Amino acid sequence: MSVSDDHTRLNADSAAIAADSDDSEVRATLAAATPLMLESGASLGPFTVAYQTYGRLDANRGNAVLICHALTGDHHVASSHPITGKPGWWHQMVGPGLPIDTERYFVICANVLGGCMGTTGPKEINPATGAVYGLDFPVITIADMVNAQALLLDHLGIDSLFCVIGGSMGGMQVLQWAASYPERVFAAVPIATAPRHSAQNIAFHEVGRQAIMTDPEWRHGRYLVEGTRPRAGLAVARMAAHITYLSEPALHRKFGRRLQNREKLGYGFEADFQVESYLRHQGSTFVDRFDANSYLYITRAMDYFDLAAAHGGVLSRAFAGTATRFCVVSFTSDWLFPTAENRTIVHALNAVAANVSFVEIETDKGHDAFLLDEPDFVRTLTGFLGSAWAARCRSLGP
Amino acid sequence: MSVSDDHTRLNADSAAIAADSDDSEVRATLAAATPLMLESGASLGPFTVAYQTYGRLDANRGNAVLICHALTGDHHVASSHPITGKPGWWHQMVGPGLPIDTERYFVICANVLGGCMGTTGPKEINPATGAVYGLDFPVITIADMVNAQALLLDHLGIDSLFCVIGGSMGGMQVLQWAASYPERVFAAVPIATAPRHSAQNIAFHEVGRQAIMTDPEWRHGRYLVEGTRPRAGLAVARMAAHITYLSEPALHRKFGRRLQNREKLGYGFEADFQVESYLRHQGSTFVDRFDANSYLYITRAMDYFDLAAAHGGVLSRAFAGTATRFCVVSFTSDWLFPTAENRTIVHALNAVAANVSFVEIETDKGHDAFLLDEPDFVRTLTGFLGSAWAARCRSLGP
Repeated sequence: MSVSDDHTRLNADSAAIAADSDDSEVRATLAAATPLMLESGASLGPFTVAYQTYGRLDANRGNAVLICHALTGDHHVASSHPITGKPGWWHQMVGPGLPIDTERYFVICANVLGGCMGTTGPKEINPATGAVYGLDFPVITIADMVNAQALLLDHLGIDSLFCVIGGSMGGMQVLQWAASYPERVFAAVPIATAPRHSAQNIAFHEVGRQAIMTDPEWRHGRYLVEGTRPRAGLAVARMAAHITYLSEPALHRKFGRRLQNREKLGYGFEADFQVESYLRHQGSTFVDRFDANSYLYITRAMDYFDLAAAHGGVLSRAFAGTATRFCVVSFTSDWLFPTAENRTIVHALNAVAANVSFVEIETDKGHDAFLLDEPDFVRTLTGFLGSAWAARCRSLGP
Repeated sequence: MSVSDDHTRLNADSAAIAADSDDSEVRATLAAATPLMLESGASLGPFTVAYQTYGRLDANRGNAVLICHALTGDHHVASSHPITGKPGWWHQMVGPGLPIDTERYFVICANVLGGCMGTTGPKEINPATGAVYGLDFPVITIADMVNAQALLLDHLGIDSLFCVIGGSMGGMQVLQWAASYPERVFAAVPIATAPRHSAQNIAFHEVGRQAIMTDPEWRHGRYLVEGTRPRAGLAVARMAAHITYLSEPALHRKFGRRLQNREKLGYGFEADFQVESYLRHQGSTFVDRFDANSYLYITRAMDYFDLAAAHGGVLSRAFAGTATRFCVVSFTSDWLFPTAENRTIVHALNAVAANVSFVEIETDKGHDAFLLDEPDFVRTLTGFLGSAWAARCRSLGP
């Protein structure tokens, strides 16, 4: 993987954009002249955004698809992860001939503000002080993340996205894009998400944050300076969260009560059951690729998300007059962002007579189904994007 | 509250039992002559069982009701808790004129083996060494807990229980009682429980155990000797578990996204939302009344519970030939022990033509509904116990 530093606005040569960046990380410095005003009232800038692109931007710059990643995702959407070496988190969805077809679309995915994979976040250096941000990093929101992405699009010379798409926290960003920049979004696909974070989901996030912040190695957020790592706390946070990404039927099918490398119960506190061993593995590998403070900031951004609140408590007002085509997708066994939450998005869109399709995919795989190769899901995305693309081509003309 | 030490088998004067123990804790030393053989193969004895009784034992000793408590419950079922000062955990269900009517029944509730409220567990002194057990305490199972309770009944001179009743882990004990001692159980009421712990529930327990065991203050279980307390880890364990006891609708109704003592978001990591503040409170108060090692042992006992496994994998065999009358109760919004799990008990009982009623209570209060004053639940228990008592009186004769 190569990283190119790209500090100036790219010129209009779309082939050059594609050639420079396909399957390799790019970093852009944004908000250098004018800092980004955050929802909290603080300002941030200059900051770096790390992103990946796949495919080529058309001459008319009309084929850009922005993919928004989830809480622990990043911009390595269809290429191998630089730390784990694993395939990109949506590799089965993004590529030549796949639903998000890189022979047709110019795909962009940026690490979110507050992240830990190259975009400015709490583990990076604060240019104002020369020291690691830590908890001096300002608390950011989903709208802040989206505003930073909009600056990236400005930088890339892309006025209008063909589509913005994402699941979970990615879906929150999709909704925020459609609300904040309706004229820049031709089509929007919020998947397995909600227009506001529920009390139960805030509660689960709070458990994770408490696990991190009570780990003595966290050092009040100063662990990078003090040379420690709150590995145990972050692992526990990940374990708790990971359960919520699955479903009881999926866990039962995958592990049931089967024992791990033993014939009978151990009568101790080692991992007797496969499900325990699996969870411990999820926790311990996560800490190798994720920053604990980023976990605090990004969960907080999700907790704070409440799109209706910014529109007088009426969700449909967020979408008043929208011309965007929406496809809302939920999964039957997702109990983190259940169908009912996704349906509130559809109801709000219906209330303003927006163009919206809604599909609930039958699966036992829980919330994580949006990351998996679910045939009905693949068919849904292929169908929606295909017909939206035909409409896009008509609207852009020959 | 007075504690009486009661080291010898009580005489047959039932009035004396009642007078000695009503509304005050009693401790009995059991297995002094012959240790209790545990499922692990280890043996334990002598050990102490702390218990409470309410009401008076009839002359024919036929009116005893054994209440089995849940994971973090104890024997203070209808009298104030010695640490928190709060009313007993089932005070609205147990008392004069209440469904478990102490004017009719002699009610017994014992702190489980491995517990931390007076019964022998990891925080007590190992008589063999004179030191605190800690992790030298043997891993115990639901069957071990029930066998210890059976020794307590022997000690009290009670051959046959009118009823054994309990919710959650208490319900597991009820099922184990019915399977292990069918001739001693006239009626059985397993509530909000399962015949085996599910993969998802094992996973949640493992998160809690990891939170405790990775707390440096845990000291490999030797915190009592070393003068520390794994408060942070135990609090996180409690917070994660507490979410599973409720339901999203209940959390939404109770807290929604309402802020705690503030007008607007704090843009920090303090408890902005009421649900965060509530959870933190649940965690911090729990550590004042519960022992971290007990939490490990009791969650392990629940994980290990698999009643069918002890009967060739066929659950109905656990109940073959039973004459016990069962009433199985579940709650619609309980996602920890959902109705489907409770139904497997009913199916197994049906397969052996047992006398069983099954009631699913409509409520949005989640698993904890069994601890609350749910009118339909109260009516169900009153009705079942009333008709079972009439049958009991017929069977015992005048």
